[in-house]
Amino acid sequence: MATDDGFAARSSAWTARVEAALQRALPAAQSEPQRLHAAMRHAVLAGGKRMRPLLVYATGALFDADDALLDAPAAAVELIHAYSLVHDDLPAMDDDDLRRGQPTVHIAFDEATAILAGDALQTRAFEVLAQAGAPAALRVEWLAALAAASGASGMCGGQALDIDATGASQALEALQRMHALKTGALIRAAVRMGAMAGNADTDTLSRLDGFASALGLAFQVRDDILDVEASSEQLGKTAGKDAAQAKSTYPALLGMAGAKAKLDELARAMQAALVPFGPRADALKALGELAINRSH
Amino acid sequence: MATDDGFAARSSAWTARVEAALQRALPAAQSEPQRLHAAMRHAVLAGGKRMRPLLVYATGALFDADDALLDAPAAAVELIHAYSLVHDDLPAMDDDDLRRGQPTVHIAFDEATAILAGDALQTRAFEVLAQAGAPAALRVEWLAALAAASGASGMCGGQALDIDATGASQALEALQRMHALKTGALIRAAVRMGAMAGNADTDTLSRLDGFASALGLAFQVRDDILDVEASSEQLGKTAGKDAAQAKSTYPALLGMAGAKAKLDELARAMQAALVPFGPRADALKALGELAINRSH
Repeated sequence: MATDDGFAARSSAWTARVEAALQRALPAAQSEPQRLHAAMRHAVLAGGKRMRPLLVYATGALFDADDALLDAPAAAVELIHAYSLVHDDLPAMDDDDLRRGQPTVHIAFDEATAILAGDALQTRAFEVLAQAGAPAALRVEWLAALAAASGASGMCGGQALDIDATGASQALEALQRMHALKTGALIRAAVRMGAMAGNADTDTLSRLDGFASALGLAFQVRDDILDVEASSEQLGKTAGKDAAQAKSTYPALLGMAGAKAKLDELARAMQAALVPFGPRADALKALGELAINRSH
Repeated sequence: MATDDGFAARSSAWTARVEAALQRALPAAQSEPQRLHAAMRHAVLAGGKRMRPLLVYATGALFDADDALLDAPAAAVELIHAYSLVHDDLPAMDDDDLRRGQPTVHIAFDEATAILAGDALQTRAFEVLAQAGAPAALRVEWLAALAAASGASGMCGGQALDIDATGASQALEALQRMHALKTGALIRAAVRMGAMAGNADTDTLSRLDGFASALGLAFQVRDDILDVEASSEQLGKTAGKDAAQAKSTYPALLGMAGAKAKLDELARAMQAALVPFGPRADALKALGELAINRSH
């Protein structure tokens, strides 16, 4: 199908762009302190779907924004995502040894280095935006959006809610609120930064926010389903951890059929949000479908 | 003495300003996730000399910059400092139970909460700058300066060098380089952000950078001396840790007399750097003297 071929080509061009931007953003492996730099590079360059950067580019494409303008927010949102995984994997947090089929940073290096590497990656995210080749007013808008999504009212707050709830059963509403912060906030920020680069008006921002919220939730519902149905090998991380940790999940609360029906509902919400953009939204639509159908 | 009275009054007015700015920057204790918010508040509001914020205001005063303009960088640099202490105190890092006479965040709460609280405080520092009531161009300059000072080429890099060196003896040059990053970079950023608010030219920025480098180093030399000479009660943290951890320090490398001579040399360098500013530099001069003479 022409659309799919088009998406595959655009998606791999965008991935190449963000990989190059991340390489530029990361400190050289040979410079001191080498161990810290190596840990930062391991955290960012050991694979990953680059979903958040792709959302930045695909949203910018709705407004014909220049891809080069989008490199900084695309790299910045991935740096925040990478730092959050390094810290979430720590023994005091989720205690994970494996991530994307690779040893996690505190296993490949050590705990102190993992804490510092995460810290320095967060700093670098904001530095990349501050130094971006974009008008100062846009850089400041991006910075405020990314910070709001990452901090106590966003991703960190969601992780805190998740930790508070571990071992206890959560109602659907509390689960949804936790995910809206823990993974949703950063996904919404990716879409929002792309839209800001395109000078989107308030109504358009709010429509795209709806799309991003549905996508973030779909991503999480799919994650919960995969944790039950897929193997550790397919996932590149430990499968079955949710049940082992007695975490509330969508399949646990809604049943597997209910969780899959929820995914269908979210898919329809995403499609509806993108209707006004016509074919310009093809890439964003394809990313939404990927979140629903992914197998790892 | 008139100057000292003047400094005491200005210093307490500035401290009150930054306390208010920090209160505004911190999430409410009553809002969810309460444990995370309480940990963030504990980290920032449990005392501290507020030296970095005072440097922002005192440097701004060289240029008659409005104090209100300086509240954001003053709060931001203190938030970065506070986050770094929370993470440095963690068991995997310096493993400290006591800070400013209070239990450290991971003791008062738990390790996961301490990691997240530090993360969210860092985010908030950049958010405060992004949202400051200042021209976008100045906000972006501040952001770039604070990020450069905090990350892998600044504070985090210095902490990594410090960890690499623990248990091993370090030459004076390596020790100086480590401190220039670990504590020096943020002190230089505080002075630099104050100067940026005053539209300082390149030559003036570089002169003030020299002052800040001397102050940062003096602060550290004094810290090493106090670790030997003062009690834990006076310090509000565990004394004698450097020797116990076999860390290289100025007294260990230069002898106590040599370390005190180094302090005198740095005091003269600070005074010399401020000569061209005349009496406008009184507050900054007083801060330099405080770093040299402090007893805790």
